[in-house]
Amino acid sequence: MYRTHTCGELSINQVNEPVTLAGWVQTIRKFGAITFVDLRDRYGITQLLFGEDLNATLDANPLGREYVLQVSGKVQERSNKNANIATGDIEIIVNSFKILNKSAVPPFTIQDDTDGGDDLRMKYRFLDLRRNAVKKNLELRYAVGRSARNYLHENNFMDIETPFLIRSTPEGARDFVVPSRMNAGQFYALPQSPQTFKQLLMVSGYDRYYQIVKCFRDEDLRADRQPEFTQIDCEMSFVEQEDILNMFEGLIKRIFKDVKNIDYTEQVERMTWEDAMWQYGNDKPDIRFGMKLANLKSAFLTGGKIAATGALINGAGFGVFDNAETVLAIAAPGCSEYTRKQTDELTEWVKRPQIGMQGLVYIKCNADGTYKSSVDKFYPEEKLKAIADAAGAKAGDLVLILAGREERTRKATSELRLEMGKRLGMRKEDEFKLLWVMDFPLFEYAEEENRWVARHHPFTSPKPDHINVMINNNPVIENAEKYLEHPYSEIKANAYDMVLNGNEIGGGSIRIFQRPLQEKMFAALGMSEEEALHKFGFLLGAFEYGAPPHGGIAFGFDRLCSILGGSESIRDFIAFPKNNSGRDVMLDAPASIDAKQFDELQIKLDLK
Amino acid sequence: MYRTHTCGELSINQVNEPVTLAGWVQTIRKFGAITFVDLRDRYGITQLLFGEDLNATLDANPLGREYVLQVSGKVQERSNKNANIATGDIEIIVNSFKILNKSAVPPFTIQDDTDGGDDLRMKYRFLDLRRNAVKKNLELRYAVGRSARNYLHENNFMDIETPFLIRSTPEGARDFVVPSRMNAGQFYALPQSPQTFKQLLMVSGYDRYYQIVKCFRDEDLRADRQPEFTQIDCEMSFVEQEDILNMFEGLIKRIFKDVKNIDYTEQVERMTWEDAMWQYGNDKPDIRFGMKLANLKSAFLTGGKIAATGALINGAGFGVFDNAETVLAIAAPGCSEYTRKQTDELTEWVKRPQIGMQGLVYIKCNADGTYKSSVDKFYPEEKLKAIADAAGAKAGDLVLILAGREERTRKATSELRLEMGKRLGMRKEDEFKLLWVMDFPLFEYAEEENRWVARHHPFTSPKPDHINVMINNNPVIENAEKYLEHPYSEIKANAYDMVLNGNEIGGGSIRIFQRPLQEKMFAALGMSEEEALHKFGFLLGAFEYGAPPHGGIAFGFDRLCSILGGSESIRDFIAFPKNNSGRDVMLDAPASIDAKQFDELQIKLDLK
Repeated sequence: MYRTHTCGELSINQVNEPVTLAGWVQTIRKFGAITFVDLRDRYGITQLLFGEDLNATLDANPLGREYVLQVSGKVQERSNKNANIATGDIEIIVNSFKILNKSAVPPFTIQDDTDGGDDLRMKYRFLDLRRNAVKKNLELRYAVGRSARNYLHENNFMDIETPFLIRSTPEGARDFVVPSRMNAGQFYALPQSPQTFKQLLMVSGYDRYYQIVKCFRDEDLRADRQPEFTQIDCEMSFVEQEDILNMFEGLIKRIFKDVKNIDYTEQVERMTWEDAMWQYGNDKPDIRFGMKLANLKSAFLTGGKIAATGALINGAGFGVFDNAETVLAIAAPGCSEYTRKQTDELTEWVKRPQIGMQGLVYIKCNADGTYKSSVDKFYPEEKLKAIADAAGAKAGDLVLILAGREERTRKATSELRLEMGKRLGMRKEDEFKLLWVMDFPLFEYAEEENRWVARHHPFTSPKPDHINVMINNNPVIENAEKYLEHPYSEIKANAYDMVLNGNEIGGGSIRIFQRPLQEKMFAALGMSEEEALHKFGFLLGAFEYGAPPHGGIAFGFDRLCSILGGSESIRDFIAFPKNNSGRDVMLDAPASIDAKQFDELQIKLDLK
Repeated sequence: MYRTHTCGELSINQVNEPVTLAGWVQTIRKFGAITFVDLRDRYGITQLLFGEDLNATLDANPLGREYVLQVSGKVQERSNKNANIATGDIEIIVNSFKILNKSAVPPFTIQDDTDGGDDLRMKYRFLDLRRNAVKKNLELRYAVGRSARNYLHENNFMDIETPFLIRSTPEGARDFVVPSRMNAGQFYALPQSPQTFKQLLMVSGYDRYYQIVKCFRDEDLRADRQPEFTQIDCEMSFVEQEDILNMFEGLIKRIFKDVKNIDYTEQVERMTWEDAMWQYGNDKPDIRFGMKLANLKSAFLTGGKIAATGALINGAGFGVFDNAETVLAIAAPGCSEYTRKQTDELTEWVKRPQIGMQGLVYIKCNADGTYKSSVDKFYPEEKLKAIADAAGAKAGDLVLILAGREERTRKATSELRLEMGKRLGMRKEDEFKLLWVMDFPLFEYAEEENRWVARHHPFTSPKPDHINVMINNNPVIENAEKYLEHPYSEIKANAYDMVLNGNEIGGGSIRIFQRPLQEKMFAALGMSEEEALHKFGFLLGAFEYGAPPHGGIAFGFDRLCSILGGSESIRDFIAFPKNNSGRDVMLDAPASIDAKQFDELQIKLDLK
């Protein structure tokens, strides 16, 4: 061993003890003939004092930042203590030292507020990983994983490894494939998730399974997606939805306790998907604050239901509202005194291409009980009051109203709500609010192909009440225009998402476990019998031999860590992430391969 | 929840309690109007008693093997108790039941001694996994993993995930590659191990890293190899060999305790590679028994050293010995009275192609002190005695002697020793003997290319004493005939293998951590500077910025589990293994992929 102690453990209790430390030179400060060095390792920083006697040796063997150093010496109490670090009461009087390895000058500073840009830090990721900020993230990730494992172990879950070289069944996202040399012309696929394997394990009677496992999707990378990502993947037998919700609320609460020391004792809120869409404008609402959407007028959301006819706003001669499919309002608390400049800026904000609205209507609910609006000339004050009341506004609030096509308007109002929540300090970084969103539609309508697609995945069961609707109806959509009138559009999934502060951190469902229903599902998705057998024959076969009722969930481990760590980016919580082109810039991967490799795999390039 | 209890937990303490169970029908036994059913789940088996009142319902809803059943009823004490199972004191008087799912007749019986052949069980792996024998294996695997994680956690190791989509650097085994769609014409590789990443993590200061991680090698599959396999992968900074040996002896001992309840308190034995080769004939000796090899004559092993000149046997006119490069003997204890038939059978055994010897010489050391041999006519009795003494034989033993080319003879004698150990009951299944094998040669000589190859991998450091031999000599082999005289042939690696009962379960080394030495290594392996930079530039670069001394080890998780579980086959300890052609016969993978996939990846087949 190159050391007797780490750089994070010595204190006043070890004064006068001889010690040997090893670590990296963080800083060097010379005062005349004596030199102070901060020595850093994973565990902390310890101050070293090189006295006059070592002056000549130091001159002959000069130290530099990030040099790897081994020192022997004696612990002594410091005259000027540093209460900010654990070892701040002591320093080491150095007797002897050895430079174990030198370091070139790093291309950026190894500090929390580094001067290195993103690209440089990715290229030298091994140096970026030295920074305390990044190290804290990986430590948090490890703690989250360990906490999850302990909880799941205590609840009888077994970690069972599923294979990585599997069969390609493109359904939803694109597979990464792996040419097989031993089976020339054939390919493995990397798993998008262990979904079918964990279901097979339930058929096999393993009862409770988990795995913290890499998954792979070959998708065009939107910001903050990675081609390889990690899931906490779980499955249980003989359970109903309620059992899953309770078990995995428990998991997340345990992680809060173990990792953040937060007692999340209250029951996790639950919300239907329809309520989430109408009240918050999206299916993963941030419920740390209210500011719910008021639906002043709408066409439909699903199932052809008219939720609000627009009685409050229609017919006043204001064409924007009259002609809009949907009009939505939110009440920003305490913003009634916004200046013209501020409301103009908000108008510009909603007109940005990312939001895409034509304009913004506001109503100021003044403290004195009067109302002032950008559409004063169309709506008398009592009408404004009625609209503001509908939006739940109180005196002092500012009502913001968007109008347009249903989907765009809903998304825009949701974005505006989140933006106002942020500006008004209502999305507190240290506040964590969990939410179950439930009762999703089982199917979405794919216009181009005039068929149903699974909203979650093809293994999700309908709600128990809806199973017969699915079985007893022909999934074919005869009239594309009226797909909303097809009984399948009303079928709700026995599925649930867990949402944390406006981010989906997990999702799952009760699964189909009977072959006829699974076959019906494949048929509904437009698969022929042959295709279903070709792709999923092993699963249909397994359902013939006593498959138990089962269900599960998968958590996005990277995302969960990033939210717990207070970051927007999952990349900060992955040791060696890829960039938005799927490249590892440190390794310079992917890369070309040898002619011999092509030859052995019996493939060649076919570049367009 | 479909149950109040599992099938493994009810006992006399719950008598008269109403309970609901769910599980699989293991057996059905009808006695007149009453029916006994054994209900099975992961946790155990509980006997159900269907009384006369349910007779009609049972007739209308007949049960079958592997049906999934939910029953409600009351616990009662059994009249004829079954002490073999945990729930054997009780049974459930069934009030009501529900068939949750039916089952076709399984293609083989779900029992320990199943009637299913290997191929059938692999095709229906989800049913094979139901068998108790397989379940026990996966439970053991989970217990080993959990024990390892706990030990490593307590010793400050951090689980850090390394990427799966990396750069192909073919060096040693063949990489599996993954075509990149976003970077057309380029490929990722799947990692053969996280070797370079864990070293980068040491450069990054993570100090102690571990991961239980899938690795991939595209090799022709010998028996009991898998294209994807799992390692317990570990690395530590600021350590010397001794630190690693102590830390990971501790790990294995902890696993013995946690998983097998074995207190392995003695120090793990250590042996140099040369001793292992000379004394046991291979580098992973089974030291549960002695029967060491006596070296009667040999040319060399490494380094041109003559270990035995053959004084005892040469010149007696026995051409087989006179002309042999190597003659090795073992003494099989208590076998002096083997019949002619038995010695003939052993002779046939060593002549099998897998062993490949020309014949077998024996000396019987009779209980009365006389000697009898198959080469009596060449060697007088005192000579036979001298040879037997050299082999460590006592009265009653049988000396077995093989002669021929050095490598083949050594391997054959090693195999013969293991075979005799097995036949004589000296390789006890419940005995576990660990061993460290150390001081491997750093290089092996590759004849075809007349160059050195790394015996372990190119990141292994020479022994501290040998670093200068490596640095100060030109690796080029001028005279292929005399490669053994090249100083590099004498360099020993700072490497160690852990051996358990004759199986290598782990191996590792102290790593090179200085750029010049790493460059010298790449040069020794015949890599040009450009090639080294192209393949491992990121690692050489990292060594410029303060790389600490470090080392590590990787355990073969599948193998470790199989040995602890008393099996010869790692496949029994993998939930979804592949066959010897690398196929998953359950999934029928690998398989062909769609034209669209080829098109998007911009590759095509190039079948020979």
